[in-house]
Amino acid sequence: MVQYTDIGDVPAAEVERMRAVYEPLAESVRELIDATIRTEVDAETVAAVKAQIDAATARLRARQCDGPFGVRRTANGQSLAWGNPVIGIRNPIAPPLQIRRTEDGRVVTDFEMGAAYEGPPGHVHGGVAALVLDHVLGEVAANGDRPRFTGTITLRFLRPTRLGRLHAEAGITRVDGIKAYATGRLSDADGVSVEAEGVFIAPKWARE
Amino acid sequence: MVQYTDIGDVPAAEVERMRAVYEPLAESVRELIDATIRTEVDAETVAAVKAQIDAATARLRARQCDGPFGVRRTANGQSLAWGNPVIGIRNPIAPPLQIRRTEDGRVVTDFEMGAAYEGPPGHVHGGVAALVLDHVLGEVAANGDRPRFTGTITLRFLRPTRLGRLHAEAGITRVDGIKAYATGRLSDADGVSVEAEGVFIAPKWARE
Repeated sequence: MVQYTDIGDVPAAEVERMRAVYEPLAESVRELIDATIRTEVDAETVAAVKAQIDAATARLRARQCDGPFGVRRTANGQSLAWGNPVIGIRNPIAPPLQIRRTEDGRVVTDFEMGAAYEGPPGHVHGGVAALVLDHVLGEVAANGDRPRFTGTITLRFLRPTRLGRLHAEAGITRVDGIKAYATGRLSDADGVSVEAEGVFIAPKWARE
Repeated sequence: MVQYTDIGDVPAAEVERMRAVYEPLAESVRELIDATIRTEVDAETVAAVKAQIDAATARLRARQCDGPFGVRRTANGQSLAWGNPVIGIRNPIAPPLQIRRTEDGRVVTDFEMGAAYEGPPGHVHGGVAALVLDHVLGEVAANGDRPRFTGTITLRFLRPTRLGRLHAEAGITRVDGIKAYATGRLSDADGVSVEAEGVFIAPKWARE
């Protein structure tokens, strides 16, 4: 059972305050991930850094939520997916994507991917391209604050996607009751590299 | 152009020594990622921990490779995909998957996913399921040390996948020249939740 967390009457200013506390931490951990993959310092330094990190983790764990972050909803309708691995501002795994909705109902996003997302040398892992496109198509297929979850998605890889500045976008092609059909694509500096199409379905609890 | 890095005549014992230096660091950063998402400590503690992490990152960056890790190959045929976001032992984003090949040529893997991989509350992000299955199908489709890259992959989501202990497996259904057809699935404690099928294609430089 997919269960959202109702956090009640939290004012927007308090949400902003929480964001200002925790977002910079995740940004620092993203840098650490990149350094962890690329470092060539000696064994003694690595061991010392590891001890520092374990100490940092222990301090953070002194008070933490049970289980994963979930998706938290305020009484005034804000939805905080801060733990999400694609858009979560508190999840160091996420680039994170900032998704904009255009006037004609499409979604677009520009972002950067480095060492942490590498599959073939110098290129984005095909599964990471799938992760991004699944999310972007799901986002455009959502109906206001009612999610639609992926039913089926197909990805066509035209060529390898280079690491660096990337762009993804998606649009709805058709809505048929509880189903929305969406298409999208991922591009690097040389143009479109991956195309996607999918069917997204409203879960039972989110149907009207 | 996808370019592997030839690191020459590195003995297996030296590879093991490097693994022993860097693998524990990535394990610690994985714990830190989980704590970063779930922590509820106060703003002062978060700021202090962030400063510790920035210092750790600076120490690691004192000597690091230019750009991403790449895929490094030794003269005796070992392939080190240590930066890979699915299987990379040096990439804190990776669970990392340990993939076994069965006697009948299938690949199987058992792993755990927690807060960092959450999409719908308590459940695996659909795109993360796609990331894992793309990798596992690509692995079974590879021809010895010659990779095949994803041409097309289709994922069918039967139901949400619960976070926790997971299992993925894949097999080849047919090989047709440079193309291999593979199918696979992801399971949680309640059975199969996502099915995948894909066509994987040998890049030009990896054809015989």
